[in-house]
Amino acid sequence: MVEIRAHERVDDLDLKGLKIIQNPKGFCFGIDAVLLSAFASIKRKDKVVDLGTGTGIIPLLVYGKHEPKEVVGIEIQEEVAEMAERSIKLNGLQDIIKIHRGDIKNAAKDIGANIFDVVVSNPPYKRANTGIINELGTKAISRHELLINLDELVLSAARLLKSGGRLSMIHRPERLKDIFLSLNKHNFEPKRIKFVHSKVHDKPAMLLIEAIKGGGEFLKIEEPIYVYNEDGSYTNEILRMYGKEELQK
Amino acid sequence: MVEIRAHERVDDLDLKGLKIIQNPKGFCFGIDAVLLSAFASIKRKDKVVDLGTGTGIIPLLVYGKHEPKEVVGIEIQEEVAEMAERSIKLNGLQDIIKIHRGDIKNAAKDIGANIFDVVVSNPPYKRANTGIINELGTKAISRHELLINLDELVLSAARLLKSGGRLSMIHRPERLKDIFLSLNKHNFEPKRIKFVHSKVHDKPAMLLIEAIKGGGEFLKIEEPIYVYNEDGSYTNEILRMYGKEELQK
Repeated sequence: MVEIRAHERVDDLDLKGLKIIQNPKGFCFGIDAVLLSAFASIKRKDKVVDLGTGTGIIPLLVYGKHEPKEVVGIEIQEEVAEMAERSIKLNGLQDIIKIHRGDIKNAAKDIGANIFDVVVSNPPYKRANTGIINELGTKAISRHELLINLDELVLSAARLLKSGGRLSMIHRPERLKDIFLSLNKHNFEPKRIKFVHSKVHDKPAMLLIEAIKGGGEFLKIEEPIYVYNEDGSYTNEILRMYGKEELQK
Repeated sequence: MVEIRAHERVDDLDLKGLKIIQNPKGFCFGIDAVLLSAFASIKRKDKVVDLGTGTGIIPLLVYGKHEPKEVVGIEIQEEVAEMAERSIKLNGLQDIIKIHRGDIKNAAKDIGANIFDVVVSNPPYKRANTGIINELGTKAISRHELLINLDELVLSAARLLKSGGRLSMIHRPERLKDIFLSLNKHNFEPKRIKFVHSKVHDKPAMLLIEAIKGGGEFLKIEEPIYVYNEDGSYTNEILRMYGKEELQK
């Protein structure tokens, strides 16, 4: 039996019967995790690392969508790491998904250098010194670059991945220059970018990027993703990602 | 009187009565020039340079849309430079638009360093060593990086511009990484990017980017531009740029 505490709830992921334990007062998963898991190129033989896994939502969604051989979630915060482990147990996936407690900066030293096929991450979006940090603890660490910045995260991914291994991230469009410069510095070649727009005529709200360690030059900016129709309902593309039935036109 | 030769034609720009001389067998202006002229931030007091001006379409459109104090078009090919000069005369704009014959790489030495407010360019899109070069002469030089590459063009813009001056380019999305790296190398900060899609669900076909020489960090990826409606007609946004009346919905 897996313990569910009084302040927690269990949510259904609408994906192969998978469930997740979340604390409604903490950081609950959003569309970012769903978009990233759908975007990342992952094969069944792959060994995957999720940097800053939080409640373990990305390993669960990645497993649900791609069934890779192994997923390791790195998490520095004990409270959520422990919750992630209970979610993994709840789904009976202890043999496939592991949580490693530690700093992303030490990940390759801790779990192995140059051995992973894929690194995924939904990192903190905001520079530590920008914006008002009005959240505390878990939420602030998830949103602001307090414990790790983008460049350190890309460096950690470079150390974890095999040559030819793939890094997929979701980030904010305004960080695009920083992303390109860090990828270039750490010998990644950007391969695919997808912008995510709330509606068709809005500026992009998020971007998805896949880069290859030591890859050759070939960048494709793919078809955009639109989250909402004009009437505010989810687009069919998003309904598909959430495992819901598509609406008829 | 301005001479129009047998193989040439005069096209109306639908913008303040402006006209251009073109050779239908040569490189005729396309939507790129219209998009770039509409995108660039240009004020009435500005001194503008167009790198690789060809038939002078961008100086004419920039004048028509923004009425800057001065525009210099740099062009290395005598045949089109001469045609551009006749177009300028045809429009009576000899006091405002000048054509300078020369290599973009020497532009700052030739016309002045650190004195311009804006540089615009619709440079060759393709690397010299990629794709099949099946055009000859003028067309090949306009499309392939035969005489100048992206990094040399950005360097030339950096030399021409005042500190705080603005570089606006239209380019291909697959060159985005190269653009960011060259801008960074030559002390430009990217400020605004707009992707141009043929239709809403297509990947972007072109990108517009504005960077500031010595600017502070603040990148905005703006609302995209869609060129065609689902039925293949121009969108109202494009009709406006072409100075045509908008269609009723």
